[in-house]
Amino acid sequence: MRPILLALAAVAFQTSTPASSDTGEVILTETSHQAEFQLVEITGALADPWSLDFLPDGRLIVTEWSGAVKIVKNGVASVSLRGAPTVLRRDEQSAGMLGVAVHPDFAQNQQVYFCFLHGDYDSNVSRIARARLDGLALVDLEVIFEGNDRSEEYHHSGCRLTWSKDGNLFATFGDRRHLPGDSQKLDSSTGTIIRINDDGTIPTDNPFSGDAGARPEIWAYGVRNVQGIASHPETGAFWFSEHGSLGGDEINILMRGANYGWPIATYGIDYDGSIITDDVELEGVEGPLIYWRPSTAPSGLAFYAGNQFPHWRGDLFMGSLGDRRLVRMELRDDRILFQEHLLAELDERIRDVRMGPDGYLYILTDADPGGIYRLEPVEN
Amino acid sequence: MRPILLALAAVAFQTSTPASSDTGEVILTETSHQAEFQLVEITGALADPWSLDFLPDGRLIVTEWSGAVKIVKNGVASVSLRGAPTVLRRDEQSAGMLGVAVHPDFAQNQQVYFCFLHGDYDSNVSRIARARLDGLALVDLEVIFEGNDRSEEYHHSGCRLTWSKDGNLFATFGDRRHLPGDSQKLDSSTGTIIRINDDGTIPTDNPFSGDAGARPEIWAYGVRNVQGIASHPETGAFWFSEHGSLGGDEINILMRGANYGWPIATYGIDYDGSIITDDVELEGVEGPLIYWRPSTAPSGLAFYAGNQFPHWRGDLFMGSLGDRRLVRMELRDDRILFQEHLLAELDERIRDVRMGPDGYLYILTDADPGGIYRLEPVEN
Repeated sequence: MRPILLALAAVAFQTSTPASSDTGEVILTETSHQAEFQLVEITGALADPWSLDFLPDGRLIVTEWSGAVKIVKNGVASVSLRGAPTVLRRDEQSAGMLGVAVHPDFAQNQQVYFCFLHGDYDSNVSRIARARLDGLALVDLEVIFEGNDRSEEYHHSGCRLTWSKDGNLFATFGDRRHLPGDSQKLDSSTGTIIRINDDGTIPTDNPFSGDAGARPEIWAYGVRNVQGIASHPETGAFWFSEHGSLGGDEINILMRGANYGWPIATYGIDYDGSIITDDVELEGVEGPLIYWRPSTAPSGLAFYAGNQFPHWRGDLFMGSLGDRRLVRMELRDDRILFQEHLLAELDERIRDVRMGPDGYLYILTDADPGGIYRLEPVEN
Repeated sequence: MRPILLALAAVAFQTSTPASSDTGEVILTETSHQAEFQLVEITGALADPWSLDFLPDGRLIVTEWSGAVKIVKNGVASVSLRGAPTVLRRDEQSAGMLGVAVHPDFAQNQQVYFCFLHGDYDSNVSRIARARLDGLALVDLEVIFEGNDRSEEYHHSGCRLTWSKDGNLFATFGDRRHLPGDSQKLDSSTGTIIRINDDGTIPTDNPFSGDAGARPEIWAYGVRNVQGIASHPETGAFWFSEHGSLGGDEINILMRGANYGWPIATYGIDYDGSIITDDVELEGVEGPLIYWRPSTAPSGLAFYAGNQFPHWRGDLFMGSLGDRRLVRMELRDDRILFQEHLLAELDERIRDVRMGPDGYLYILTDADPGGIYRLEPVEN
C-alpha cells in the first residue's frame, strides 16, 4: 500500500480489539507524512516511569525508576505493588528499576519479569527477577539471574527485557561506565545482550555456552547501553538501539554471537571530546544500520505491525530522550530509507515505545510527573 | 581512520598534486563533523552553469544552460567557446546545455562530450555530441547519439555524462515530463540511463541489445530525472541521484538492466498532491538506498577518494538545489549511515559536485551569476 495521507480516508480502520484503557484526554493532533494521529493521555500521574508492558486483560504494567511497579487500568495508575524487588536508585540515568516484561503465558502463570540495579552505592549489580502478579501484589519474587560485574558503578546499566518467539528472555546489560572495556570480554556480563530461559537457566545452544572462560548467557557483546530492543514482525530478528558516547548512537540488528564493537570501534567520541578509538569499523565487528551525531539518546524501540495505522505497518519507532521526539523510520529490508520526527509539540523525553495488542502505539515519557500516552488515528 | 576533527591536526595533508586553478578568495570556513574546510571561489562570473569537468592540464571546462561552454583557467572564465552545439534553452529546468565529460584519453584526442536539448519549442530531443577542443574553439563537432523521444516537452531532460572504467559513456535521460509512462517502455529512450561507446555506437553487451523492440542503448530504465551519477571508488558501481516528484527524491545503485520503478512505484506524490501510484515497492523494481520527503532536489553526485580530506574518503557528496546545501553522506558498503548538510551559509542551489584530480572537492552553483568553488582543508 502507498503510505500517504491522501489515501487514508479510504481505509476502513479495524478496531475490533478494544483499546487497553479507556480513552483519555487528547493532548495534541499531528499530521505525519503517513497518517494523521492524535495523542491521548492514558495517565499522567507517574514518577519517572521507565518501561511498560501489556497484560492480556487490557491493563498496563509500568515500572518507575524509584523501584515502584504500578498497574494502569482505565487510565488510573495504581499504588505501588507490594512485593516489588528492592532496587538501588540514584539521581542519575540507568540505575533503579528498569525493564519489565510480561510472560507470554501470563494468562496461565501470572509471571512478570523485571530488570533492575540491586545493591548499594559501594557494590551493585544488574538483576533479573520474576514474580507472580496477584491483585495489587507481586508474590513469590525470585531473582533468576544476576550479572557478574558487581561494582560501585551504577551508570549505563541498560536494561530492556523482551521475549523471543520461542520463549527465551533477552536482556540488555550496559557497560557500567567505568568498565567499558569489559564489553569486549566474554567472561563478563558487562556490555552484553543475554539470552536466558524463563526460569533463569541458560539455554545450551547459546553461542558461547561451551567455551571455557566465556559467560554462557551471552548472546552478543560489545554494546554500551542498550535501552531499546524489538522483534521485526516479519523476520523475527531483534533490532536494538544503543546509546553511544558523544555522537555514536546506533541502531543494530542482533545476531548470534556478534560483537558490536564498543569501545574498540565506534562513531562516537568521549564526552570530554577525547578520542575513544581510531576505528569506526573493524574486522569481526558488526556495523550499525545508522548512527546519530550529535547524539539523539535513543531509548525504547518498537516495530509497528498493527491495523490502526495501515500506512505505518513495518515502520520502526524509537523514543529519543535527547531530541525529545518519537522517531518514525521507514524500512526496506534492513535499510532505513526515511526518518521522521514526531511529537515535537509534546516536547518530552520518550523512554519507551510499544505497540499495544490493540494496534495502537504507546509511549512513555521520562519525567516526574511522567505519563503513558497512546497514538490513535484521527478518523476523518 | 577515525573521522573526527580532533584527529585532523595529526594528519599530514598530501598536496603533491597542484590545485586545478590558483587559489581565489576564501568565501567562508566551516567545520564539518569530519573536517574543517574553507570554500574558495574559483570563479563567480558564470551565468547559470550546469556542469563541469577537469582537463589534464588543470583547467576546467564548464557548461552553461544557455548553451555556452567555457574554459576556466587560473580562476578566469573564458569567453564562450566557438563551435559549441546549438541548444534549445528555455527558462525552465533541465532544458539547454547540460552535462559535459572530458574523454579519458583527452591528452591524446582532445575530445569533449556534451549532452543537451536540441530542437525548437515544438519538437526537441536529447542529444549527445562530441567535439575536439582546440584553443578556445570546439572543432569537428559531431552528434553521436540522439534520443528517440522527440516531443514538444523540454522538462526533465537529465542529463549527466560519465565514463565507466572500461571507456563506455553513460548518460542519464529524463522522463520528458509529459511522457513519464514511457520510462517503463524499453522501446523508448525516455527515463533511461544509456550506455554507449565513445563514438556513439552501441555496445553489443548491453542488457537489451538483442531484444526485438527494445532500445539497445538502454542500460537501466524507470527513472524520472537523474542529474547526478558517480562511480564508487572501490566497487566501480555507479550510484545516481534522482529527482522524484513531490517527496520522492532517491539515491540508487545502477545495475545492468534494472528497472527503478518510475512512475509505477515511487515514494513521491504528484505536485498537485494527487497519487501517482499506490506502490512504493514492486516485484522487479529496484528500491532506493534512501529517499527524501519533502524533496531536496538532488543534483550532482561525487564520491570523495582524494588525499586532501582523509576523513572524507569514501563519503558521498550530493548537491541539493532545494535545500541549497551540499550533503555529505557516510557509507558502509551500500548503507547510508549518516547525513550532514554543509554550506548552509553559502545558501546557493548546488548543481554539480566533482572531486578534482587534485583531491579537492568542487561545487558549481546554479545561479546567474553562478560560480565554481573549491573546498579546501583548513590546515591548523
